[in-house]
Amino acid sequence: MVREKEQTIILKKQPRIIGSYSIVGPKEGKGNFGRYFDYVMKDDSFGENTFEKAERKMLESAITGVIEKAKLSTKDINLMIAGDLLNQIISSSYAARMYPFPFLGVYGACSTMAESIAVASVLIDGGYFDNVVCCTGSHFSTAERQYRFPLELGNQRPPTSQWTITGAGSCILSLKGEGPRVTMVTFGKVIDWGVSDVNNMGAAMAPAVRDTLLRHFAATKTKPDDYDLILTGDLGKLGSEILIDLMDDEGVTLGANYGDCGQMYFKRQQKTLCGGSGAGCCATIFNSYIMQKLREKQYKKILFLPTGALLSTTSTQQGDTIPSVCHAIVIEA
Amino acid sequence: MVREKEQTIILKKQPRIIGSYSIVGPKEGKGNFGRYFDYVMKDDSFGENTFEKAERKMLESAITGVIEKAKLSTKDINLMIAGDLLNQIISSSYAARMYPFPFLGVYGACSTMAESIAVASVLIDGGYFDNVVCCTGSHFSTAERQYRFPLELGNQRPPTSQWTITGAGSCILSLKGEGPRVTMVTFGKVIDWGVSDVNNMGAAMAPAVRDTLLRHFAATKTKPDDYDLILTGDLGKLGSEILIDLMDDEGVTLGANYGDCGQMYFKRQQKTLCGGSGAGCCATIFNSYIMQKLREKQYKKILFLPTGALLSTTSTQQGDTIPSVCHAIVIEA
Repeated sequence: MVREKEQTIILKKQPRIIGSYSIVGPKEGKGNFGRYFDYVMKDDSFGENTFEKAERKMLESAITGVIEKAKLSTKDINLMIAGDLLNQIISSSYAARMYPFPFLGVYGACSTMAESIAVASVLIDGGYFDNVVCCTGSHFSTAERQYRFPLELGNQRPPTSQWTITGAGSCILSLKGEGPRVTMVTFGKVIDWGVSDVNNMGAAMAPAVRDTLLRHFAATKTKPDDYDLILTGDLGKLGSEILIDLMDDEGVTLGANYGDCGQMYFKRQQKTLCGGSGAGCCATIFNSYIMQKLREKQYKKILFLPTGALLSTTSTQQGDTIPSVCHAIVIEA
Repeated sequence: MVREKEQTIILKKQPRIIGSYSIVGPKEGKGNFGRYFDYVMKDDSFGENTFEKAERKMLESAITGVIEKAKLSTKDINLMIAGDLLNQIISSSYAARMYPFPFLGVYGACSTMAESIAVASVLIDGGYFDNVVCCTGSHFSTAERQYRFPLELGNQRPPTSQWTITGAGSCILSLKGEGPRVTMVTFGKVIDWGVSDVNNMGAAMAPAVRDTLLRHFAATKTKPDDYDLILTGDLGKLGSEILIDLMDDEGVTLGANYGDCGQMYFKRQQKTLCGGSGAGCCATIFNSYIMQKLREKQYKKILFLPTGALLSTTSTQQGDTIPSVCHAIVIEA
């Protein structure tokens, strides 16, 4: 009944990612990818009087930063596609009012980087727009107090928990210019296998990756070895192990070319338990380290799979489990 | 500096809206459009134990309803695009897990119906998908307690306030089949003229409509008289009067062919003050009354302009003003 082929898009013109930018907090700057980020903030408040305003300012910095880095001006941009974790995606919406181009708000939780690139790719591939900016981000302190507890309580974190990345990533897609090409898009289905532990997002999201991966491989007739890198968003240490097991059960081996942004983000001494998470997690790694390796052609073809847990505090309080989604994009050097 | 033309999409293949469905609450059913809706619920709880679950069930009913009405099955659908007003768009995300097709979550507050139709139109026009379902909705009781006060408090409503519609609307876009055609799309910019009164959304959103209207008219070389109907989403009584004044200042007269879904929704005796609002407001009118008039060719060409106020309670509590957006779509019989 499932028609995988019709749910994967093969892009004819293959839009290029002509610029990328990343900005992170100080803890993230001390992580494994510190030297690849464009800007490391001195402190998490970024000169603002609330963490929410700091998050918004990060997104603005990422948007302005990527436009300047690509040697374009705001009048060259036709559209901005963005989303974030805050209620009503206020970081993106409020950032958008600073710019003269239209805004398309998307919500896919931590899968937003893939969702925005996927939609932008199609808009450009179809010849509708020239240059589209994609952006997302998250902030540890806004996410903790919105989704879990006020930081002031000093709650102990369970071992399966992940650390929401303070950071924002952005990129510009275009048919003109140089850069890695987006060649395929597989939109994710919402998958819910009944996990209800809000401190174990990796376990909730792994089945969504499994579904998208299986559909992507079937539709494109590819296998793991066809990619230099298969990169999930923020399954974390436990979630990425669960994914490897789930895929193993399907006869698909995820080997040395598989990695997870959340799992890789921090050094062990940084005590983030299961690793990084948040919309800014894969957004900052992708728009720094990964893009550099693609530009240097150390990676020739990657499968990028950001994941999102689509819960809210209301759904949790009402006893619901956690549905998740994973959108896949293929990028070639 | 503003390049209107490059921000308006002229659709080459002109995707058709091959089916539409609307479901509303009892108060909405007694309003001016009562006899046009597909389903009027007997009570606002829709058999669920929370209003949030009732809202979700409305969206599920709208999605299942439109697929059946279009004489399709779920396997014919390639993608669902949806969003709503609840934090993390849980009504849409949780509804999506019931279906076997992929999900693209969007957020544009009450502009979501236009945003989802706009994105679906482009995906179909570009030849990427065959059938895409668009859906959005809202619920008076979930919106009141999330955005304003618990209903139990019985707060008095100020005269500028609007009544969030309990209802959901959906449609299916396709190249195959019969139905009105989506011919143009103008994505909205985020506009903020400094209104901070959360009980006066119409005033906050009117400048966003002004911006999109002016850009749309300039890009498409059309004027108000070229449309049988120019229909805004939920500016309400006050907001739509503000829009008429704002456009008048620009030398553009919005006359008898201009209407606002919020302003028209209820009868005067229903005491909704400035009228209806919410993502379900224009979604339910568009997918019932408007679609019927288009199918009957009483309207030949309409300009549909749903509007969204992009605030959250956090942004309001931190002293922010209300940014707004308005996406425009042109539909021809």
